[in-house]
Amino acid sequence: MINGEKNIQKPIRWAMVGGGRGSQIGYIHRSAALRDHNFQLAAGAFDINPERGKGFGIHLHVEPDRCYPDYKKLFEEEAKREDGIQAVSIATPNGTHYEICKAALHADLHVVCEKPLCFTTEEAKELETLGKKKNRVVGVTYGYAGHQAIEQARQMIANGDLGDIRIVNMQFAHGFHSEAVEAENASTKWRVDPKIVGPSYVLGDLGTHPLYLSEVMLPDMKIEKLMCTRQSFVKSRAPLEDNAYTIMEYDNGAVGTVWSSAVNAGSMHGQKIRVIGSKASIEWWDEQPNQLRYEIQGKPVQILERGMDYLYPEALADDRISGGHPEGLFEAWSNLYTRFAIAMDAADHGGESNHFWYPGIEAGVKGVRWVENCVRSADNGAVWVDYQ
Amino acid sequence: MINGEKNIQKPIRWAMVGGGRGSQIGYIHRSAALRDHNFQLAAGAFDINPERGKGFGIHLHVEPDRCYPDYKKLFEEEAKREDGIQAVSIATPNGTHYEICKAALHADLHVVCEKPLCFTTEEAKELETLGKKKNRVVGVTYGYAGHQAIEQARQMIANGDLGDIRIVNMQFAHGFHSEAVEAENASTKWRVDPKIVGPSYVLGDLGTHPLYLSEVMLPDMKIEKLMCTRQSFVKSRAPLEDNAYTIMEYDNGAVGTVWSSAVNAGSMHGQKIRVIGSKASIEWWDEQPNQLRYEIQGKPVQILERGMDYLYPEALADDRISGGHPEGLFEAWSNLYTRFAIAMDAADHGGESNHFWYPGIEAGVKGVRWVENCVRSADNGAVWVDYQ
Amino acid sequence: MINGEKNIQKPIRWAMVGGGRGSQIGYIHRSAALRDHNFQLAAGAFDINPERGKGFGIHLHVEPDRCYPDYKKLFEEEAKREDGIQAVSIATPNGTHYEICKAALHADLHVVCEKPLCFTTEEAKELETLGKKKNRVVGVTYGYAGHQAIEQARQMIANGDLGDIRIVNMQFAHGFHSEAVEAENASTKWRVDPKIVGPSYVLGDLGTHPLYLSEVMLPDMKIEKLMCTRQSFVKSRAPLEDNAYTIMEYDNGAVGTVWSSAVNAGSMHGQKIRVIGSKASIEWWDEQPNQLRYEIQGKPVQILERGMDYLYPEALADDRISGGHPEGLFEAWSNLYTRFAIAMDAADHGGESNHFWYPGIEAGVKGVRWVENCVRSADNGAVWVDYQ
Amino acid sequence: MINGEKNIQKPIRWAMVGGGRGSQIGYIHRSAALRDHNFQLAAGAFDINPERGKGFGIHLHVEPDRCYPDYKKLFEEEAKREDGIQAVSIATPNGTHYEICKAALHADLHVVCEKPLCFTTEEAKELETLGKKKNRVVGVTYGYAGHQAIEQARQMIANGDLGDIRIVNMQFAHGFHSEAVEAENASTKWRVDPKIVGPSYVLGDLGTHPLYLSEVMLPDMKIEKLMCTRQSFVKSRAPLEDNAYTIMEYDNGAVGTVWSSAVNAGSMHGQKIRVIGSKASIEWWDEQPNQLRYEIQGKPVQILERGMDYLYPEALADDRISGGHPEGLFEAWSNLYTRFAIAMDAADHGGESNHFWYPGIEAGVKGVRWVENCVRSADNGAVWVDYQ
Ligand SMILES: NC(=O)c1ccc[n+]([C@@H]2O[C@H](COP(=O)([O-])OP(=O)(O)OC[C@H]3O[C@@H](n4cnc5c(N)ncnc54)[C@H](O)[C@@H]3O)[C@@H](O)[C@H]2O)c1
Ligand SMILES: NC(=O)c1ccc[n+]([C@@H]2O[C@H](COP(=O)([O-])OP(=O)(O)OC[C@H]3O[C@@H](n4cnc5c(N)ncnc54)[C@H](O)[C@@H]3O)[C@@H](O)[C@H]2O)c1
Ligand SMILES: NC(=O)c1ccc[n+]([C@@H]2O[C@H](COP(=O)([O-])OP(=O)(O)OC[C@H]3O[C@@H](n4cnc5c(N)ncnc54)[C@H](O)[C@@H]3O)[C@@H](O)[C@H]2O)c1
Ligand SMILES: NC(=O)c1ccc[n+]([C@@H]2O[C@H](COP(=O)([O-])OP(=O)(O)OC[C@H]3O[C@@H](n4cnc5c(N)ncnc54)[C@H](O)[C@@H]3O)[C@@H](O)[C@H]2O)c1
Repeated sequence: MINGEKNIQKPIRWAMVGGGRGSQIGYIHRSAALRDHNFQLAAGAFDINPERGKGFGIHLHVEPDRCYPDYKKLFEEEAKREDGIQAVSIATPNGTHYEICKAALHADLHVVCEKPLCFTTEEAKELETLGKKKNRVVGVTYGYAGHQAIEQARQMIANGDLGDIRIVNMQFAHGFHSEAVEAENASTKWRVDPKIVGPSYVLGDLGTHPLYLSEVMLPDMKIEKLMCTRQSFVKSRAPLEDNAYTIMEYDNGAVGTVWSSAVNAGSMHGQKIRVIGSKASIEWWDEQPNQLRYEIQGKPVQILERGMDYLYPEALADDRISGGHPEGLFEAWSNLYTRFAIAMDAADHGGESNHFWYPGIEAGVKGVRWVENCVRSADNGAVWVDYQ
Repeated sequence: MINGEKNIQKPIRWAMVGGGRGSQIGYIHRSAALRDHNFQLAAGAFDINPERGKGFGIHLHVEPDRCYPDYKKLFEEEAKREDGIQAVSIATPNGTHYEICKAALHADLHVVCEKPLCFTTEEAKELETLGKKKNRVVGVTYGYAGHQAIEQARQMIANGDLGDIRIVNMQFAHGFHSEAVEAENASTKWRVDPKIVGPSYVLGDLGTHPLYLSEVMLPDMKIEKLMCTRQSFVKSRAPLEDNAYTIMEYDNGAVGTVWSSAVNAGSMHGQKIRVIGSKASIEWWDEQPNQLRYEIQGKPVQILERGMDYLYPEALADDRISGGHPEGLFEAWSNLYTRFAIAMDAADHGGESNHFWYPGIEAGVKGVRWVENCVRSADNGAVWVDYQ
Repeated sequence: MINGEKNIQKPIRWAMVGGGRGSQIGYIHRSAALRDHNFQLAAGAFDINPERGKGFGIHLHVEPDRCYPDYKKLFEEEAKREDGIQAVSIATPNGTHYEICKAALHADLHVVCEKPLCFTTEEAKELETLGKKKNRVVGVTYGYAGHQAIEQARQMIANGDLGDIRIVNMQFAHGFHSEAVEAENASTKWRVDPKIVGPSYVLGDLGTHPLYLSEVMLPDMKIEKLMCTRQSFVKSRAPLEDNAYTIMEYDNGAVGTVWSSAVNAGSMHGQKIRVIGSKASIEWWDEQPNQLRYEIQGKPVQILERGMDYLYPEALADDRISGGHPEGLFEAWSNLYTRFAIAMDAADHGGESNHFWYPGIEAGVKGVRWVENCVRSADNGAVWVDYQ
Repeated sequence: MINGEKNIQKPIRWAMVGGGRGSQIGYIHRSAALRDHNFQLAAGAFDINPERGKGFGIHLHVEPDRCYPDYKKLFEEEAKREDGIQAVSIATPNGTHYEICKAALHADLHVVCEKPLCFTTEEAKELETLGKKKNRVVGVTYGYAGHQAIEQARQMIANGDLGDIRIVNMQFAHGFHSEAVEAENASTKWRVDPKIVGPSYVLGDLGTHPLYLSEVMLPDMKIEKLMCTRQSFVKSRAPLEDNAYTIMEYDNGAVGTVWSSAVNAGSMHGQKIRVIGSKASIEWWDEQPNQLRYEIQGKPVQILERGMDYLYPEALADDRISGGHPEGLFEAWSNLYTRFAIAMDAADHGGESNHFWYPGIEAGVKGVRWVENCVRSADNGAVWVDYQ
């Protein structure tokens, strides 16, 4: 049960790069970080446009002289201050994550980085090594993973409630880009520009989300081979795909599928994961995140509800308001940011943080790796490739 | 609107092969055929066990001497009678369809045959040629296609309500065979015996159903390539699969997927089809067949209801009770059997029957062909194959 | 499991009064009666217009000279025949039920009568006495009661699965008459004419349906007091109501509510019943009749599915196609007509028919009585009245 | 669109009375108030137990000497400080609201008070007068009203999308108190003690919530008469009810119903409101608060989604993350607390706050009044009473 009591002695001094006014994802970072006094917004380089970024920062109660024109200045100036920032979140378009993240680690900062962490496993490994060397936390915001139902699923699987895992079906398939909306919409424009997003659009932007949920639920299963086919239904997006199917074979004989799409006309999010075992299945849908379907073969379907006593204790730990009251995406993100804070604090003060998981740099690495494998398959004619 | 008034002057004299007591599918054939005086059950060879078959036939009000020990006798003896049968339905295990169907056509009978029609396109073509030569109707019971929502979907697509078709996602994925129930259950046993079901289990038994729905909805789209991967999660079923994924490329640039499974633990039927266009999508689920989701991009999701005035007239033709009252699978089958009867009557009396479609021999042929292509792909390492 | 095998030795010779071409409810009577050879349509007086009625009967394969101009002729002429009818169904507007039913019983016929049986408990009692004296079956078509989920609910309650029953919430609230459609629509016109429907519209036409479901589920509970308030939102309908709320107190301390409405704009049927006990609740909705929600306090909600092994055996008796396949309203009616047939046959041949229930004359009586009590309350200012 | 930018120049210095560790509702007050820098938690009297309250306050980052033993000390001491509190939230058991609220107003504080504001309209009016005289804001936390779908409903009704309003069906009916859990559970114990909760349990605790939603949606409709019947299914709760039905007549001829229950076994919240007009209905359910059903008679049901462009602009004003992402109860409360802050700031600095509504003291008054009328009806034999 979370009730606002402090998790760490003092809020962590924190800044943001990106996430400016009008950005899609900036507010949820702030809302999640600032909740329950885990972080305190001390500085920022919020916008590609320094002027606008400064104005915005001031509106967020940041002191004017700590609203910097860019991330370099931010890291440089804050390093000089006694009360300089301890951590930074990066919420800029994809192409900049690698360099900003590297710079932040070099500046001895803890990092929360948007996905994808970078574009190649090589870069990802480099960041991983750097993070370890510096003893800095790098969190990656696979935000949906913070929902309590995901933890319940993880525990059910670990406890054998589903039997042997056979099938994992995943999808993140919205319809908002059924037409070439990028012509008008800035937040979409860079998403379909290979220079900024790297070698893929929906695989990286969407597919990696349910993929990460599967990693949380099924930590022991390893992909051995995969096959990916991708399409650009809006022609101008080629070579980037706006729809893709991936099929995977795991080391335990299970199979998995991921449908990634931005042209699933009329669908809202359409993010779902269904894990099928020899005895039972579970299914979760991000638009109704408080429920988890539990289907035991030969028994009536059950609808598990967030916050109820019959759940595993681990799935109740992050409850804030008890069952029946809908929590939403903001709580999921807050749950992750809380863990980031505890882990950062532990890194700084030698405390323990190994009693919980969070999407760390290895999650970022895995996402990048999966996209790479998908692209390699797709670009070779949708052939099966060994997972590298 | 159907209200029981006669569709043809006199009920067609009709027999069944198979569909005996305890069979899964026998009753729905009878129930559908006998509705509204389209057919009249005059004879039968209902069971592999002649004794049991005769006893059963008598209980169905068939005259004892017209309950035959096998289909050969049935066709032979009935041919001698003035009031001999005019049509026969075949509801036996798969391995027998081809020979019984051929014999029936040679006996100048109209045929309703269970799917799959046979195991090879060669055989299928042979039956097709024979049927044409004899001017006999061959209906194939892809029963779900008789639901009114399918007709509505067909009309919506034809009228461009969805825009250009991009994606067709299909599944028929139940969980009833998550364990090796075939050890105990006769109706399941033959389904996993290659001698009786041919080269596939779930692809043929399940996947062909939504595939046929897609053919009804999208009559102009042709598969050009496909890829199929299949698994036997219950090991003893190998080489037959109990789970399979198929991905298809169509001639218009669209892609399609079919998930066929009998190990989707906890799921009832799980038969669904979602057709995605550039403007909107529709989705249909066989367990709630009276509803059709209609999702226009950028607009609220709409739930279309069977029997309502706002549907296309073609989707109202088979309404029996008006909107709000749930019709079920029996009505879907009855709708098809009505069309079979009208087509048979037209074939006999020179009437017109080209104002409606029904799953005829070409539907059977297509199903067989699709399974063949899937198996060819799967057995070559789940490679992409040109559709033959 | 129903598979079409005969329930009685020979189909009962049967006729209809009303239910002509274009009528709402005629076809479902025929479809239900003729299924599985329980009845055989031998004669009829199908329409208020004799000419039209005869033409229609012929289209139903009835012999022309047994298509009669009115029910009097029908009963009179058929009585003279060796092969005359044994039973009749009455599907005419409400105001005629009493006299036709009485005439049928006097003609020694078994009767299936539409609800409401008549307008006063006095008339109802008279019919009850007559039926007993004549040893004739009178079935009343509360058709929804034939759904298997209703039987499951009945068994669950009888077995104490819900604990002590506290609350029964019912509704039948559609929106089709939100406007004064009676101006155009013949089937609606008489429904709002007190001369033809008696003292109430929606209470009798709609509310009695879920009320009967509650009687099936809760055979031991007796209403002691009730209160009813009714409205005519379409003013021209006054004094007949198009919306009403009834609250009831039962002898065991439970309370019940019924919302009856024809102005629930946008709703299809909206027929629901929720029974709440001290331990658990069940809820059923007629538009998705194959599912029954089972909600045990403190446990995950369960969705029970028709045709599944985990149900009580009584709830499986009428299964025709096994779980996962949707049955609809036609099966529900067929199940009742089958029981009517068995009961009629038993009455004629001295067999047993007391191992099952069906909506008989006492159900009709109860419905009439409930409407009377509601009207008495409403017309006295929506006061509480002792149940008479 | 809310993105964290400041709504007022400086956060309001704020305290809580009640809402201590383990309380049900304390955290959501803090979470909502502290979001987006609207308030800053400066002091508190968090617990009936001063020791525990102080320990808790410290864990909330409140300075130890501003964690007071009781509300009197809190108001007294803070009044002496330059940086003393400007506002207080009261989240204690019901019986204390009146006196604490009065004391707060006398101390010139803005107030956010839990419902019910008090127990009699007399007391309520007194507080209203005092609040006006002091020019202090009194907000009442009918938190569900902050959901964006409620605003959409309000706008739709105002714009005539539903036609004339005829029927308002409401319910808040959970099952958590199906048994006498108060024996064990402190948060439940006082809820069924008339000394602490006044004359009613579920009417006040639950029924007033959807009632307030109806007031937001239908600001012009006035109750003229009502009838209420209540029950104590757990006998020891008498005279307090754990189940109640209320029926209301409005000045425009509409009718309304409220089902309040804590013994709806197996239900989570079960808070719903359905508003039915002559043309269309809308329906909202607090457990899936991001959706609003819109049912136009004769058209397919539509599911409106929070955050989508097709909504009225007023319903988009509080969007924080765009459509498809589930917001939850915390956002609903935050939206209200934001309005409280703006109104308080305006009261202090002479700004405008009349461009939005919030549940103020008149909402509290109305709730109290409704409970009084219900109780008066119920205690007189569930008779109709004129609304006073
Ligand atoms: N985790 C999730 O669920 C999720 C959801 C949406 C977006 N994202 C990720 O978040 C990131 C941002 O996406 P968005 O949709 O908010 O983008 P956006 O285009 O809406 O906003 C980007 C913001 O970054 C600022 N910016 C750009 N370049 C910058 C720079 N060099 N320095 C400082 N600020 C800069 C822009 O001014 C803008 O304010 C992307 O990597 C995206 O993949 C993640
Ligand atoms: N269209 C559909 O939706 C659907 C659904 C289920 C089954 N089927 C198909 O229907 C066919 C029958 O399946 P089922 O599940 O009812 O099988 P089943 O095993 O339950 O019943 C088969 C019946 O056929 C009889 N039979 C077997 N061999 C015979 C022979 N040579 N002559 C006469 N009778 C014989 C058996 O005695 C039994 O009564 C299969 O081809 C199956 O694929 C179709
Ligand atoms: N059980 C149910 O669920 C259900 C549903 C709908 C209707 N009903 C009941 O069924 C009855 C018929 O309703 P409907 O909606 O079908 O009505 P309708 O107006 O659609 O049809 C009535 C039919 O009866 C015929 N008819 C009228 N008077 C007759 C007479 N004196 N003799 C012979 N035929 C006559 C008419 O020509 C017409 O064919 C009503 O009592 C109604 O309450 C029951
Ligand atoms: N708006 C809503 O949706 C909603 C929901 C739940 C509760 N409530 C209301 O909130 C109020 C509190 O309910 P709860 O369920 O949180 O109760 P609770 O019993 O769980 O908690 C009450 C808290 O108040 C403290 N307290 C009690 N008396 C006090 C006093 N005199 N001074 C200071 N602190 C005191 C207790 O120590 C405890 O921390 C009630 O009025 C209830 O009706 C409203």
